Amino acid sequence: MAGDTSHGSVPRGEAALLARMLPHLRLGPEVELGPGDDAAVVRLPTPRLVVTTDTLIERHDFLAHTTTPRWIGQKAAVQNIADVAAMGARPLALVVSISAPAGLPAAVFEELTIGLTARAEADGASIVGGDLGRADQLTVTVTAMGSLPEEQRAVTRSGARPGDILAIGAPRLGRSAAGLALVLAERVLIRPGDDGRPTIMLDRVQDPSAAQLVRWHDAPDPDLSLGWGGGRRAGAMMDLSDGLVRDVGRLARDSGVTLDIDPHALEPDVAQLAGLASELGEDPWAWVLHGAEEHAMLATFAPTEVPSGFRAIGRVLPGDAGGPGVVLDGEPIEGEGFDHFS
Amino acid sequence: MAGDTSHGSVPRGEAALLARMLPHLRLGPEVELGPGDDAAVVRLPTPRLVVTTDTLIERHDFLAHTTTPRWIGQKAAVQNIADVAAMGARPLALVVSISAPAGLPAAVFEELTIGLTARAEADGASIVGGDLGRADQLTVTVTAMGSLPEEQRAVTRSGARPGDILAIGAPRLGRSAAGLALVLAERVLIRPGDDGRPTIMLDRVQDPSAAQLVRWHDAPDPDLSLGWGGGRRAGAMMDLSDGLVRDVGRLARDSGVTLDIDPHALEPDVAQLAGLASELGEDPWAWVLHGAEEHAMLATFAPTEVPSGFRAIGRVLPGDAGGPGVVLDGEPIEGEGFDHFS
Repeated sequence: MAGDTSHGSVPRGEAALLARMLPHLRLGPEVELGPGDDAAVVRLPTPRLVVTTDTLIERHDFLAHTTTPRWIGQKAAVQNIADVAAMGARPLALVVSISAPAGLPAAVFEELTIGLTARAEADGASIVGGDLGRADQLTVTVTAMGSLPEEQRAVTRSGARPGDILAIGAPRLGRSAAGLALVLAERVLIRPGDDGRPTIMLDRVQDPSAAQLVRWHDAPDPDLSLGWGGGRRAGAMMDLSDGLVRDVGRLARDSGVTLDIDPHALEPDVAQLAGLASELGEDPWAWVLHGAEEHAMLATFAPTEVPSGFRAIGRVLPGDAGGPGVVLDGEPIEGEGFDHFS
Repeated sequence: MAGDTSHGSVPRGEAALLARMLPHLRLGPEVELGPGDDAAVVRLPTPRLVVTTDTLIERHDFLAHTTTPRWIGQKAAVQNIADVAAMGARPLALVVSISAPAGLPAAVFEELTIGLTARAEADGASIVGGDLGRADQLTVTVTAMGSLPEEQRAVTRSGARPGDILAIGAPRLGRSAAGLALVLAERVLIRPGDDGRPTIMLDRVQDPSAAQLVRWHDAPDPDLSLGWGGGRRAGAMMDLSDGLVRDVGRLARDSGVTLDIDPHALEPDVAQLAGLASELGEDPWAWVLHGAEEHAMLATFAPTEVPSGFRAIGRVLPGDAGGPGVVLDGEPIEGEGFDHFS
């Protein structure tokens, strides 16, 4: 991204960058003091603060030529809002720390801001402050905050109970992994557009859904309101960030149960990715079972209480049959999902 | 830091890193849910959230061989807590996102955690959550949160009034800049100690205070309780982060006043640095007037109300004599302080 000068000339100074970024912010009425002072002041609905933080870094979390600054902003917002939503809480405020190489065009900062703001606003949250600094790689850290009503329990990962249904708040799984596979196979090049409408160019790919899969990988767009909506009544909940099997395993361990994923429930997901997987010589089941960065709500509910927007993909069994863990139709599963440090 | 294997062997996986880090956290009674779930839950004293974020990045904000992971952690905590304090608020919770190269020893993560936790705890705050990821450079982003009592106004940068006193909550200024000068002159090498007591080795330096100046630069230790203590009654306040002249200029602009810095008040600060400055061929006045990263509370007060811990360094004049700005004994000042992007 540092070498991409198509966005315009490089301004001098933080003030010039902020002048490009701040006009895109939309501050809600709960923001008592927004950007420009030492800290922001926000009136939460209750004093029970919910807070999470996450970072995206160039070359490790995205490749500049296969995404756009606007999508990076959207993804940074999504992955943090998803963590607040997964507690059953509504997001209200985000702060953003952006570090970048010298000479990164001001338009990149502006597009990041547009992407961050658009997603935050869609979920009811304001960008209330941030920080700019230098780095060799573009680095975007978001902290998302919300609050929980006094009478509402936080939905943790430890509340899954035998007899419950395992459900996912997404119509399809594996899309982000499929998009990543296209990126890693070097089949993708994104040409930025001046109007925020980039062109996704694909090399040696027939599957007609491929561009949308790249888009989903670059900027996943899950319905996070399921977290603070129907998800409030979940036994256990988390966002699907590191792969279904890995994350279901976390719910299982923290709840002391066995979670049995139903392969029949995932067959439609696999079927929709089978053509592309065949083209790339990959296994669509691996994308569905181990694909990361979907950020959909993954939850357990009493059998009669699975809310609209969630679909059943398994069931909760006692943990005593071999200890807490995750199985696929009763059988062990190979593969591990994503670990930053393994 | 990536190449420094003296700290021990490299573990595999985030879980192994967290096992080294989490035992050092001390969660206050207000923490309803700490690390380990999608987000933390903290009960604030009031729903008026105060929040700020800031990032430290290897080679841009510190050099691995001239500091220690523990000091990096302390500095990351200080610079964020200072921003909350500068609103007149007490910090309560921090979240931390750490990104690092593959193979960075687990002990570095552990020492960062110890440094972060020690400073947070000293100021009454808990580390309640975080994130680990990969980067080419060690990257530490902290978000600090506190709250304001219902009846207490946020102390912004815009409340300086003619007739007020300009004051600083630090016994000496310029120490961080002096330490930085030693680092940039390549006179400093830090040898980490196993017990968190590193050795500061200095090359061709006579001044007996030099090691302490390096220490102050690497991990400044201002009294931040002045912010939520006496600073609550300031007209305007900010933390001194980018240099006295630059930051006083911000107070002046935001308040629509002229701020006149009194050079006589700063003569003791300059005198204490004069010997080292002479050795390095530098100007101690530049360190005092433009040195960054002190993080002390910079504030204006009614003349009879300068609280204990602050000392007068100037006065507030009307802004109409040539527009808002900053002067030194009535004269223009050369130099600009620090800008990440200029």
